[in-house]
Amino acid sequence: MRFLSFHVDYFGHKVTKKGRSKVIEEITEGNKENQIENALVLFISMEKQDEAKNDIFEKGIYEIEKILKQLKIINVVIIPFAHLFGQLSSIEYAFESFKKIESMLKSKGYTVLRLPFGWFNELEMKAKGHPLSRISRIVE
Amino acid sequence: MRFLSFHVDYFGHKVTKKGRSKVIEEITEGNKENQIENALVLFISMEKQDEAKNDIFEKGIYEIEKILKQLKIINVVIIPFAHLFGQLSSIEYAFESFKKIESMLKSKGYTVLRLPFGWFNELEMKAKGHPLSRISRIVE
Repeated sequence: MRFLSFHVDYFGHKVTKKGRSKVIEEITEGNKENQIENALVLFISMEKQDEAKNDIFEKGIYEIEKILKQLKIINVVIIPFAHLFGQLSSIEYAFESFKKIESMLKSKGYTVLRLPFGWFNELEMKAKGHPLSRISRIVE
Repeated sequence: MRFLSFHVDYFGHKVTKKGRSKVIEEITEGNKENQIENALVLFISMEKQDEAKNDIFEKGIYEIEKILKQLKIINVVIIPFAHLFGQLSSIEYAFESFKKIESMLKSKGYTVLRLPFGWFNELEMKAKGHPLSRISRIVE
C-alpha cells in the first residue's frame, strides 16, 4: 500500500465519467458529488505484494492515524489512485481494500469520504502549506 | 526524473514558510503568489540517476510536451516535489534542473509558472475529470 497525502482546508469532487476499469462502483445520490473541510486527502494505491499480507490494513491504518493525530483532524478522503509508481494489485483486491480501509477508519470514529471506484472525477482542493501538509508513505 | 500531472481549470499557490532544504530560493513580488488557468500542473522530482544523463532534459521535455499537445494547452506549472517515491538527486542538481526545464519550455513558447525552490506553499486547484487529467511518468 502506498499513499500521498495532502492536508486540506477544503476538498470537493464530482464524478464525471466511467474509467476503463472492469470494476465500476454504482453511483448514487450519496457518492457522486461531495465536499469536506479540514481533511487528510489520501491518494492511495494497493500493490501486488499487499495481497499476501494479512496485516497490511492494520499497518496502513496505523500510518494514516499517526498523521491524523499529528494534524489533530478527524476527516479523511480516500481517492483510489493508480499513479504512484508502484506495481498495482488486482482491481478487485483494490476495490475491496479501499472499502475495508473506509470501514476501519469509521469504526475508529473518523469521518470518511471515499470516492467511488472506477470513475473519473473533477477534484477541487485547497491544500495547506505547513511542513506536514504533503506526506508520502509506502506501507509493507 | 519523474512527475505526476494534473490538468487543471485553475491553479494557485502562495508561499508560506521556508523548508528544511539547504537551497532556499529568494522570494520576490513575482514568485510568492500566483494563479494560472487551464494548465498542466507537474509535481516533479529529479532522481539520483538523472545526474549522469545529459539527455534527461530533452527526454523529460518530450514527455511533458506530448501531454501538452494532447491537451492542446500552453500553460505549465512546475512544483518541486520530493514525495513521488523515487531516490532523489542532490538538492543543488534539482534546483538547477527545474530552472532548466522552465527555460526550455519557455523557449518553446509555453507559459511556465515555477514554484520557488525550498518553500512550503498553500496550493489551490480545480482539476478536470477526463481520462488524461492525471498522468504519471518516469523518464530515464
